[in-house]
Amino acid sequence: MSPATAPASAVRQGSLRELNLAVVLGRIAAAERAPSRADLAAETGLTRATVSAVVEDLISGRLVTEADPAPRAGAGRPARGLVLAGDGPAGLGLEINVDYLAVCVVDLAGQVRHHTVHRADLRPVAPADALARLVELTGRARADAAEQGLTLAGAALAVPGLVDDAGLVRLAPNLGWRDVPVPALLAAHPPLTEPVEGVPPLVVDNEANLAALGELHADPGGPTSFLHISGEVGIGAGIVLDGALFRGVRGWSGEIGHMPVRPEGRPCRCGGRGCLEQYAGQEAILAAAGLIGADLPADTAAARLAELAEAGTAEALRALQDAGTALGVAVAGVVNLLDLDTVVLGGGYAPLTPWLGPPVLTEISRRVLTAAWSPVTVRSATLGADAAAVGAAGSVVRRIIARPAGWLARTA
Amino acid sequence: MSPATAPASAVRQGSLRELNLAVVLGRIAAAERAPSRADLAAETGLTRATVSAVVEDLISGRLVTEADPAPRAGAGRPARGLVLAGDGPAGLGLEINVDYLAVCVVDLAGQVRHHTVHRADLRPVAPADALARLVELTGRARADAAEQGLTLAGAALAVPGLVDDAGLVRLAPNLGWRDVPVPALLAAHPPLTEPVEGVPPLVVDNEANLAALGELHADPGGPTSFLHISGEVGIGAGIVLDGALFRGVRGWSGEIGHMPVRPEGRPCRCGGRGCLEQYAGQEAILAAAGLIGADLPADTAAARLAELAEAGTAEALRALQDAGTALGVAVAGVVNLLDLDTVVLGGGYAPLTPWLGPPVLTEISRRVLTAAWSPVTVRSATLGADAAAVGAAGSVVRRIIARPAGWLARTA
Repeated sequence: MSPATAPASAVRQGSLRELNLAVVLGRIAAAERAPSRADLAAETGLTRATVSAVVEDLISGRLVTEADPAPRAGAGRPARGLVLAGDGPAGLGLEINVDYLAVCVVDLAGQVRHHTVHRADLRPVAPADALARLVELTGRARADAAEQGLTLAGAALAVPGLVDDAGLVRLAPNLGWRDVPVPALLAAHPPLTEPVEGVPPLVVDNEANLAALGELHADPGGPTSFLHISGEVGIGAGIVLDGALFRGVRGWSGEIGHMPVRPEGRPCRCGGRGCLEQYAGQEAILAAAGLIGADLPADTAAARLAELAEAGTAEALRALQDAGTALGVAVAGVVNLLDLDTVVLGGGYAPLTPWLGPPVLTEISRRVLTAAWSPVTVRSATLGADAAAVGAAGSVVRRIIARPAGWLARTA
Repeated sequence: MSPATAPASAVRQGSLRELNLAVVLGRIAAAERAPSRADLAAETGLTRATVSAVVEDLISGRLVTEADPAPRAGAGRPARGLVLAGDGPAGLGLEINVDYLAVCVVDLAGQVRHHTVHRADLRPVAPADALARLVELTGRARADAAEQGLTLAGAALAVPGLVDDAGLVRLAPNLGWRDVPVPALLAAHPPLTEPVEGVPPLVVDNEANLAALGELHADPGGPTSFLHISGEVGIGAGIVLDGALFRGVRGWSGEIGHMPVRPEGRPCRCGGRGCLEQYAGQEAILAAAGLIGADLPADTAAARLAELAEAGTAEALRALQDAGTALGVAVAGVVNLLDLDTVVLGGGYAPLTPWLGPPVLTEISRRVLTAAWSPVTVRSATLGADAAAVGAAGSVVRRIIARPAGWLARTA
């Protein structure tokens, strides 16, 4: 009998097993303390026998493992807790940015198991060549993952631009990319990951979106609605509302770098004038700090600026103050519009938060109508410049956790 | 037996009836062409007997009425169609704005059955006195509704400010209100509407939010995600995403009037500088057009400006061009951030759309990164200056349609 003509009850049984796998794995993933089989039965309402059978499937499929029991007072043998496996499937996270390539591997539990950053100015490099270099870098990541017993089950690529549903990069102004068909270009290379049902081999997404998602998952107890701003050569924002990314009507939300902060000011690469990027982008800050031409990669640039600011260099302090003020004007507009109470400074901004944060807060308190009653928190991202690549790899892992049956079908 | 100890099946039966009432009424409300009982059975999956019983309840409760059948070709007696009743419950919509009070009555079918606008500068009036005047105005609305066989089943009040969940107006800068407890002040007056289970007697909300909701429901086939901008003395925005109002973390989203468009420009009543309101608010446009001191109420002001622009008066045209440019700078920022493709100009802006629209579009095409692939539509609101009051009344009506059992319990 073909699956298409299977009787309804069989279909329902298959779906029920898939549902139980996802429910139990989801609970284990979300638990603060490793739950026992009995805990899972109590929480899910499933019978203990069902939970045990599901857990056996998850363990033999390398999705879950037993943790050593925590020592506890009182009588009886402590039950063994269940945690996500560190030797099962993993996500491959990739990033192409203006001045670096990054590759990382994140396991089911969210641990970064491999991380490579390759510095290079990608602006003069053709898209196909940039992708070829990235593929080359993944070789080491794949070997490293295999050595650790991990299977790469899908990849996601972060780019600093506008991406459509098919993975076409419509525009990445700071890279000089326009209409780059990433999946077609990568098809010229061997596959990067193992095929897993329900997990696309490659998802292409905007780096600010992926960095915001990375931050959401790196801080599980944190706010579920926030504005995450990635400050690199370009400036992108990820808008997280109620624990989900707000993508906009066509998936192109978050272009905060092109919000006008001096409407008739400096011309921008985008064709507009006075865009935030021209006042608070990495190049603008470096130029104002007298570091123009130093040609430092993003996180080195941020580290160098932080050093100079720490040392009290007047030029660097003034450059950061001015950039923070411009950023604050844009952020005040966003907070007036969206009524968010948390702003996370990520990417190259993260290490500069001690200097950028105060002028941002000053502009918020000057300009946000509700600031008097509901203070806005401005803080540094938990993840650093690698947030987008880590967020990309994490997005693969979360697909597997949401639908473990696809992975288990592969290993069965 | 008290309801609290009723057996589960009885509770379920009660809920099932409520659910069926809501499902059938919802279908009738959403239908483009008056459906017959048979149409409803086919659409909902309920039996024809159940649909007939439910429809009888809805008809005897004055929620639904039978329409004359449309003439049709072919054999057989045409079935009678069902439409929302025009003589049942209605919503009372109220608005206090800077220079007018408005009262309207909207029936179940969304028709405006009464409308009064009272011009007055409310800025020097104490909040309790402004509310007392509004209550006085409702007298005529209530008499008018009663004469038409309508029962006012709840009220909603639109104010140009920040409102918390309890109906406290935290701040309405252009009215000069701060921490005004509207429900407590109204409690000094007789109730405005009949008590109906599940319908709050008075909801207080931001006028830009209610105007956006009014627009959403006035144009059922229109876009479900858009930015609605109400241009009055103040400028407020309602952000509609996927058919729902986006309210923000604390319900205070949409303060587009305080987005900085000239960051070190004119000081604003809010304490900030260079807010959009100072360049595109009604007073700014009137001043630039040489009409300052004319002290015209909002829609008269808009009509006067439209007249002058129509006549080609250079000052008025320049004033509208400049206001549209400032508005376009703010809107470009919003579109870059949220990736919306429809902008609706409402309130006092609606009649000025022929002159404000082009400069807004110019700024969008200059400044929005994605404008090249996905054009943004800028259009005039369907409703005029009365959008907020109509939206307020409509919000009451939609509560009744969503849960008709509360209204039927009253009439039973």
